Amino acid sequence: MMASGVGDCGSKNGSSEEHFAFSKHPNLEDIRKLQAEFSQERNWDQYHQPRNLLLALMGEVGEVAELFQWREEVREGLPGWSEKEREHLAHELSDVLIYLVRLADKCQVDLPAATKEKIALNKQKYPVSKVWGSNKKYTEYTEDEM
Amino acid sequence: MMASGVGDCGSKNGSSEEHFAFSKHPNLEDIRKLQAEFSQERNWDQYHQPRNLLLALMGEVGEVAELFQWREEVREGLPGWSEKEREHLAHELSDVLIYLVRLADKCQVDLPAATKEKIALNKQKYPVSKVWGSNKKYTEYTEDEM
Amino acid sequence: MMASGVGDCGSKNGSSEEHFAFSKHPNLEDIRKLQAEFSQERNWDQYHQPRNLLLALMGEVGEVAELFQWREEVREGLPGWSEKEREHLAHELSDVLIYLVRLADKCQVDLPAATKEKIALNKQKYPVSKVWGSNKKYTEYTEDEM
Amino acid sequence: MMASGVGDCGSKNGSSEEHFAFSKHPNLEDIRKLQAEFSQERNWDQYHQPRNLLLALMGEVGEVAELFQWREEVREGLPGWSEKEREHLAHELSDVLIYLVRLADKCQVDLPAATKEKIALNKQKYPVSKVWGSNKKYTEYTEDEM
Repeated sequence: MMASGVGDCGSKNGSSEEHFAFSKHPNLEDIRKLQAEFSQERNWDQYHQPRNLLLALMGEVGEVAELFQWREEVREGLPGWSEKEREHLAHELSDVLIYLVRLADKCQVDLPAATKEKIALNKQKYPVSKVWGSNKKYTEYTEDEM
Repeated sequence: MMASGVGDCGSKNGSSEEHFAFSKHPNLEDIRKLQAEFSQERNWDQYHQPRNLLLALMGEVGEVAELFQWREEVREGLPGWSEKEREHLAHELSDVLIYLVRLADKCQVDLPAATKEKIALNKQKYPVSKVWGSNKKYTEYTEDEM
Repeated sequence: MMASGVGDCGSKNGSSEEHFAFSKHPNLEDIRKLQAEFSQERNWDQYHQPRNLLLALMGEVGEVAELFQWREEVREGLPGWSEKEREHLAHELSDVLIYLVRLADKCQVDLPAATKEKIALNKQKYPVSKVWGSNKKYTEYTEDEM
Repeated sequence: MMASGVGDCGSKNGSSEEHFAFSKHPNLEDIRKLQAEFSQERNWDQYHQPRNLLLALMGEVGEVAELFQWREEVREGLPGWSEKEREHLAHELSDVLIYLVRLADKCQVDLPAATKEKIALNKQKYPVSKVWGSNKKYTEYTEDEM
């Protein structure tokens, strides 16, 4: 499959991310399995009840928030951030993902399948013809966007 | 590599999740691309600055919290939850993932690669020989676990 | 007005807190003023835009979450918590309050007046005759309780 | 007592809030008592274990986040917000306060006293002589500010 959107980047805000892509691996199931093994090897499964994991997730989201809190608006691509700050952010976002995956695992929610379904639902809920360019109404349309 | 842990489930707490696995698709890059297209088609990229997405992520974590808030301890697999409640949770966890992926995308953080690296770092930080069964010290070891 | 519930504590869950009370000072306006002075003396007002304060608030809520994350259910009064853990919690809850007050200040929301009004609204929304003892329906009634 | 800072508003960022003040009532103990009565009358104390309240707090912080999520930077005083949006925010901030007070109550943390102590500690930790105008170092000084 072709890389996403290369060569076609006209809009003011929507272009640059199309030159960026994630690695294809690990996928969410790989991460689930890695983290399940990590916990089992340490006998930490006993601590990973759903509400514990949810509180841990909140703690990690809080750490991401701390990286953004005293800055004015931060632009796409994080202009002006040092390599060390970017790495710190990468690790904190990873922590959020690790606990999110672990929480879904313990709740037996098939996270990739559910996400695919949710994006499809969002497409129906926000048809292009209704919401495009409707800047003024954006908040209203998206109050419960996802 | 073998499918996840099927047929090998000895420990008291660590077994049941091994009979559960995520779908292999979509992977994180698929989700990133789907959501980038979703936003671009609607001309919503202009709203997806990193701090906006972080606040949206917080909103979604809050919605997950609401599903767990008035319950006593919730056990693995969510015994007693209705099908409707499970589906609601699946959608809210998906929303967290969607915004997390979108935030990583806009920060140009390769989320799958970073997560793989973070899990490797955690393995070094919490060697099995040091932390196994060390129930009493768990909080201390894991205060900044991830 | 009489002290709340002194000498009348029959129910299993609802009694013990009635022997506990907050200090009457500082009140919310005292805290607002103290914190405004603190920031002004340090020339930190420039960083205290509403969204910055909201992210800082989230960071502090995350730190509270970390204190509760690896415990099973925690009971009223925190039985089994050490003095040091209680003090840590007291400081983290204070941090949440400080940023909440600061955020309300910068948004020019009269927080004590608004809270008084909100409690009055909640009384109307959840009349005793409708919700008392309605254990089964609690989640439903309170999904958007407050 | 004189209103704080009236007539003296020179600096660009630090002045306007000094023309704004909270009502002196209710104080935090009043709110604690009101909310304890509210819960007791409805037989809801049984649901107000600390971790439940913390998750409810998180849900409310999420609702505040939703009010700020799709906006670019929001300035002090919320210029451009409608009266309805301001009232919505006032109610959501009140909900955060209500659950914070309730959580402190159930943890038997004397929130006003602890906050007074925390502000005093912050004054020692961030002496004016060391941090004033030190814009560049702000993040570093305040990473664990409070």
